[in-house]
Amino acid sequence: MNEFELIQNYFNWPLSDPGIELGIGDDAAIFNLDSGYQLVTTTDTLSEGVHFFKNDSPEDIAYKSLAVNLSDIAAMGATAKCFTLALTLPKLDEIWLKQFSQSLKQTSKKYNVSLIGGDTTRGPLNITITMMGVVEKSKAIKRSGARNGDNIYVSGEIGDAALCLKKINAGERPHKAELIKLNRPIPRIELGSALKGIANSCIDISDGLEQDLSHIIKASKVGAMVAIQELPLSQSMIKYIESNDDWALPLCGGDDYELCFTAPENFNSEIINIAEFCKIKITKIGVINDSKDLKIKGYDGQGQSYQHF
Amino acid sequence: MNEFELIQNYFNWPLSDPGIELGIGDDAAIFNLDSGYQLVTTTDTLSEGVHFFKNDSPEDIAYKSLAVNLSDIAAMGATAKCFTLALTLPKLDEIWLKQFSQSLKQTSKKYNVSLIGGDTTRGPLNITITMMGVVEKSKAIKRSGARNGDNIYVSGEIGDAALCLKKINAGERPHKAELIKLNRPIPRIELGSALKGIANSCIDISDGLEQDLSHIIKASKVGAMVAIQELPLSQSMIKYIESNDDWALPLCGGDDYELCFTAPENFNSEIINIAEFCKIKITKIGVINDSKDLKIKGYDGQGQSYQHF
Repeated sequence: MNEFELIQNYFNWPLSDPGIELGIGDDAAIFNLDSGYQLVTTTDTLSEGVHFFKNDSPEDIAYKSLAVNLSDIAAMGATAKCFTLALTLPKLDEIWLKQFSQSLKQTSKKYNVSLIGGDTTRGPLNITITMMGVVEKSKAIKRSGARNGDNIYVSGEIGDAALCLKKINAGERPHKAELIKLNRPIPRIELGSALKGIANSCIDISDGLEQDLSHIIKASKVGAMVAIQELPLSQSMIKYIESNDDWALPLCGGDDYELCFTAPENFNSEIINIAEFCKIKITKIGVINDSKDLKIKGYDGQGQSYQHF
Repeated sequence: MNEFELIQNYFNWPLSDPGIELGIGDDAAIFNLDSGYQLVTTTDTLSEGVHFFKNDSPEDIAYKSLAVNLSDIAAMGATAKCFTLALTLPKLDEIWLKQFSQSLKQTSKKYNVSLIGGDTTRGPLNITITMMGVVEKSKAIKRSGARNGDNIYVSGEIGDAALCLKKINAGERPHKAELIKLNRPIPRIELGSALKGIANSCIDISDGLEQDLSHIIKASKVGAMVAIQELPLSQSMIKYIESNDDWALPLCGGDDYELCFTAPENFNSEIINIAEFCKIKITKIGVINDSKDLKIKGYDGQGQSYQHF
């Protein structure tokens, strides 16, 4: 099978977005941007042994590759539109490819994004997706807009992906519900979009709350005070902390892809409405101050957020 | 060094394009498209052992990663604008990173493209670049526009990269000039742009003329007749063929990144002018017909163009 046949067989499904003039099958894809909109683009790689295990299902790997990129677009308040896929494969495994491509197709349909191009290469398994989205001019939520006195919020519950990973690494078998948290994170697309004009900074928690919130305060030139007692935790996490007193997991665990954002206090009731509308728990975890540091009340451990190297 | 420091140290240089509202350092980059333009986007991966050797210089690897993507944008007649870099590295090698990033910066400056985002991951060396460019609405040169009776042209000389690779694989030491053909291909950006409104189909020769021209005739639903005697060959290649009678190299060798394009006969004199203006040799190698097949006059070998798997 040559690259052309591989793409035809596994990655060439009909596109429904009229903004795409040319998808897979040329030197490059062509995409129309409506006037008044800006292009928003992000790239994330999933690499074996780092983002997934050797024996993880191709369906989960495909899902997660898309989800982590969608999460970045969500954190900008933008709408995801289309993506390219760079797929490096050790060998031509048609069963793996079929499962991977079916999950990719299903997930892209669910989130209304179109695969418009890519590259297939031989080598150790590596999946890089570049996601492109759009946002109304000047409406994107950057990391740099947090101001002294703002509230700090987090969506959903944090630390569960790290807890699941910890169990796997310890040789325990996590429950199915716990595995879903690690392998099937939900990109907060709807929430990100609803926060436009309300949140003044936002980031998705991929490397751990402590590290990712630090990016916000650094970009915004402010400080923050967060209390561990306020962190939104699942029942499993509460149980884990009760027996281990290990707050590093929710504070520094990555891979949850929840949104951390800031907004002035006067938007608080609107944020409660958004939480109801999006059916997502949103929790106030602290306040922005003018100290330039991140203080975590109740935690005296060292930062243990994810380091890429 | 965490990912943040790595990016700050090696990949965060000032951008000069006013169309870029937000570059590296947020969840996603933001880019403005002028009205009347379309976005053109392509992704190419370079993987160790396939696109470069383990000991190739980081400078050459960085250059080639950009060049192969620029070449795809050139083949559309588009103007490259910005790119994301997904870099998977086995370890944090600061000497390697410094050389890689300096070459990337230098090359991106030369071709006037801005690094606006990316991802760094630990794993076997893998470099994926997604290049974004712009083209006036409906002006892109697709693969699908070739018509019966059109001339087929090729820029530069073909097969030299494959000849160099053959020598390396045979344990010979190629001349410096030959290595440049393999490691430093020149993306035909200016030529691609000049061909807008003249060429009705175009592709860059990355996998071999025979395979890439086949993509044009398949997409355009036509056939083609090419004569080996017309192929533009370097002195080294002529010498090689004289002693080996091996036409597979120029016909099926990839990695030259020259453009293969078609145009009606009445544009021939304009194409001669473009060749002079761009200071690039352009050679007519054959004619499009209505046969649906690619016939290569003087060659009876099997297709040996590059297969990704």
